[in-house]
Amino acid sequence: MTDVTVAIAQIDTCVGDIAGNIDKIVDFAGEAARQGADLVVFPEMTITGYPIEDLALRGSFQRAAEHGLSVVAKRLVEEGHEHLTVILGTLGSLALSDHVQMPRPTNRAVVLSGGSVTAAYDKHHLPNYGVFDEYRIFASGDTTTVITVGGHRIGLAICEDIWQDGGPVKNLEDENIDLLVTLNGSPYEEGKRQQRIDLAAQRAAALGAPLVYANQVGGQDDLVFDGGSFVVGPSGAVLARAPKFEEHLLLWTLTDSPHEDHTGDVTEFTDLDEEVYTALVTGLQGYVRKNGFTSVVLGLSGGIDSALVAAIAADALGGENVYGVSMPSNYSSQHSQDDAADLAQRIGAHYRVQHIAPMVDAFQSQLNLEGVAEENLQARVRGMTLMALSNSEGHLVLATGNKTELAVGYSTIYGDAVGGYAPIKDVDKSRVWQLSRWRNTVAVDRGDIPPIPESSITKPPSAELRPGQVDQDSLPPYDLLDQVLDAHIEHEEGREELLARGFAPEIVDKVVSLVDRAEWKRRQYPLGPKVTALAFGRDRRVPVTSRWREPNH
Amino acid sequence: MTDVTVAIAQIDTCVGDIAGNIDKIVDFAGEAARQGADLVVFPEMTITGYPIEDLALRGSFQRAAEHGLSVVAKRLVEEGHEHLTVILGTLGSLALSDHVQMPRPTNRAVVLSGGSVTAAYDKHHLPNYGVFDEYRIFASGDTTTVITVGGHRIGLAICEDIWQDGGPVKNLEDENIDLLVTLNGSPYEEGKRQQRIDLAAQRAAALGAPLVYANQVGGQDDLVFDGGSFVVGPSGAVLARAPKFEEHLLLWTLTDSPHEDHTGDVTEFTDLDEEVYTALVTGLQGYVRKNGFTSVVLGLSGGIDSALVAAIAADALGGENVYGVSMPSNYSSQHSQDDAADLAQRIGAHYRVQHIAPMVDAFQSQLNLEGVAEENLQARVRGMTLMALSNSEGHLVLATGNKTELAVGYSTIYGDAVGGYAPIKDVDKSRVWQLSRWRNTVAVDRGDIPPIPESSITKPPSAELRPGQVDQDSLPPYDLLDQVLDAHIEHEEGREELLARGFAPEIVDKVVSLVDRAEWKRRQYPLGPKVTALAFGRDRRVPVTSRWREPNH
Repeated sequence: MTDVTVAIAQIDTCVGDIAGNIDKIVDFAGEAARQGADLVVFPEMTITGYPIEDLALRGSFQRAAEHGLSVVAKRLVEEGHEHLTVILGTLGSLALSDHVQMPRPTNRAVVLSGGSVTAAYDKHHLPNYGVFDEYRIFASGDTTTVITVGGHRIGLAICEDIWQDGGPVKNLEDENIDLLVTLNGSPYEEGKRQQRIDLAAQRAAALGAPLVYANQVGGQDDLVFDGGSFVVGPSGAVLARAPKFEEHLLLWTLTDSPHEDHTGDVTEFTDLDEEVYTALVTGLQGYVRKNGFTSVVLGLSGGIDSALVAAIAADALGGENVYGVSMPSNYSSQHSQDDAADLAQRIGAHYRVQHIAPMVDAFQSQLNLEGVAEENLQARVRGMTLMALSNSEGHLVLATGNKTELAVGYSTIYGDAVGGYAPIKDVDKSRVWQLSRWRNTVAVDRGDIPPIPESSITKPPSAELRPGQVDQDSLPPYDLLDQVLDAHIEHEEGREELLARGFAPEIVDKVVSLVDRAEWKRRQYPLGPKVTALAFGRDRRVPVTSRWREPNH
Repeated sequence: MTDVTVAIAQIDTCVGDIAGNIDKIVDFAGEAARQGADLVVFPEMTITGYPIEDLALRGSFQRAAEHGLSVVAKRLVEEGHEHLTVILGTLGSLALSDHVQMPRPTNRAVVLSGGSVTAAYDKHHLPNYGVFDEYRIFASGDTTTVITVGGHRIGLAICEDIWQDGGPVKNLEDENIDLLVTLNGSPYEEGKRQQRIDLAAQRAAALGAPLVYANQVGGQDDLVFDGGSFVVGPSGAVLARAPKFEEHLLLWTLTDSPHEDHTGDVTEFTDLDEEVYTALVTGLQGYVRKNGFTSVVLGLSGGIDSALVAAIAADALGGENVYGVSMPSNYSSQHSQDDAADLAQRIGAHYRVQHIAPMVDAFQSQLNLEGVAEENLQARVRGMTLMALSNSEGHLVLATGNKTELAVGYSTIYGDAVGGYAPIKDVDKSRVWQLSRWRNTVAVDRGDIPPIPESSITKPPSAELRPGQVDQDSLPPYDLLDQVLDAHIEHEEGREELLARGFAPEIVDKVVSLVDRAEWKRRQYPLGPKVTALAFGRDRRVPVTSRWREPNH
């Protein structure tokens, strides 16, 4: 047996952009070869991008993926890499399995060598919970695949295969393998970085062989893939690890007598605030770029939410691609407008002021709205203004709502909910403050100007839809509210469990009923109602950022 | 063996409204008993409503369903029906099966008799395609259940179980049963009515026993259940059939020597236009009522789309609960406004005129929009006006877009796409005309005033967003366009297949690129972007019309 240098190509694919993905695969394979790699491992579904949802079911897309694989094989040879073994992911051919009522493609790992496909493995365990619905679109594989490279026996698995007991990874325990290679499309979750390594170490121990974990990176639709690819040995030692949230080529060598020394670079983890903030930047960047936009527009209220979103956008796209609009009403305070202008200057964003009174007055002279209808009117005039600027100048609109206010329904449909991307939709108010402070501290540490005005962080939050209104008039304190919401929404705790935790009954009842009502209101006004009275023509589930277009002239 | 009178209780349940569903179950069971029934069969998931999507995963909901079953059992006895056998659907207890990565409830049929559960059957085949995602939420059953009533052996199955080969229905072939009872939540699809009967007849023939098909009825979220419950004999004869689109109690008697005579009422099928129109009325009615609204508001342009929607709404809710708003711009013709007023009068709807010029001018004085941005502005001022009326007067907003214009992107996000329900979203333009003519003809036949003004049907369609604009300036003729769209969208045909059908290349390319762009634009601006950068707090999939609320004080 000879030493085998393994390169993990941690790349950012784009769903449906088969040509672009192929270029990236060939580039990274070439660079790996130049650096002496014998084997290159790509993430899950490399040629097609991931997750492809119902695109998997389109005949034209299946054919394009099949053709794409032959293009990759040909180009690798043309560029002189016929001796390189390349493992990548793509759609497999149609098959039936226990889980599918009609033929479905498989989620496949393909081994390319010398210009042809020398082996293939079809994902066995298909995740079908949370953000995953893979039973809908894939047939399951039922075989175990072992390839030989430089005399080493290498087993293959795809993502969920290592998260579930049994199946191919269990079968490989009897195959005396020297290495397990896994292709992954594992989205970022708080706390998951260590969980992945612990799990991989457990599988490596059972197999008595190191495990290569190649993960996708980049924002794709509603998911952020964090990369952080690694190699873990059977004793649990991390032998190599790539940075998170960036493309990377990680090299590590499989030797005849594997030892537990670090044989590759091991990137250290960052602190949690940095990790979460970078996830938000990565998600925004991917969504904007993969949708073909270069700039964003958002309302700057002077408050903390829009300030954090603007800072994230400036970090993702550069301040020159961020267009901030202050849209004061008669209820907006001067200090809010000052804070908005200050923020824009700090991050180098474009800035303009558009008073909403002329439009609000025009509606009011016709409709005489009061109460919530009047508050919503203000929010909707702002939403329309942003959409008008989007239509005329080509920016993507960002919605600035945070998770707490969306959860309790402090948001206006077709108003501040307007937008193609909501960067902090999944960040609660407590964390909005925390991340804002963290981002400012980092700037100070670097000798930069802190992006977020101090007064946006310290002043009491207000929607400024009525004179003197502040959020705490009608909501529990945010630190308490966020604790109850976390237990109720993330941990699915009902009233009984919440009371058992010691939350006061009046707080629990208030929060639970706000969330119920907000969930219902949000579902009630879907954009493009999903009604299919005739049960045909149902909306396909296709990632927003898919670049797939039907073949055309 | 004694004769067994079977009652099929074809009811309209509401997702999450456990108390309401229980009342209905007890009412129908009581009525069945009064009419001499020995056995009452309800549709799938009767206690919880169907489909419940991710509600199935909530502990508090599971507990409420379990409690609900005991309430039904108790009330049936209290009301003197202890001798009645009742078969209904609900959530089963948590289980593991091949399809699920963690414990899930089953989709269960429960047999109640004498105040207790005497048997249960868990759905084996879980549909996981199209509108169904049952692998996500249910564990599969793996047993066959046969009960005995009046000496007859009766097998149980649930919906998809008869659509797939193998499994429990196949197993029952060896069980010498006298009857197969199936509980269904089978949504309406064009052409499915005969398909269901043919399939049921095939299963009945294989079993050598009649098959009882109890189906749900009513609009639920984005689905319309058409009822049409029936009994089919082993020779394929329809022995009884309930009407479609209405609640009904259908009686039929299982005798010792089953014969193929019609032993119950057999409702004839209606013509297809009536069926589709009634499906649209049923869907709208269910959505409005189950969401707690009593009235709707919509823009009346004088065109055919809004006219048909208004007619459907008036048939569903009564004209007095329909609020039409004419919102003319400077480009709106007088005849359009006349047609809108005429329509409202014909259907007995409320009617008002709200000129949009004051609001459009206010925006334009500030923003100076041109081209598409200006066209969108008009549509958005209308959308905001309708939402303002919704907020201040409490009506649900209806969107009036048809399937053809949505498919090709002739729709403004946050403009005419505004609405909680879009009754004709799944009806192409050709069919909009056809249904409008059909509805008018029915009115004439009945001696009523035809609801839709003749000139709305005959004039060339126009969005009236520019002077003299008509749809056909920029689109192929609608009859041709709808044919291409049907092949491309419904039958997933790509460019090659469309050309092979003989469509001209320039038409195919135009339609395919319009659809691609429209799909992308629609996905790009989701309401409440579904971004979950931290991959926690993802939106649950819960039916819009769910009445489930977390237990509270």
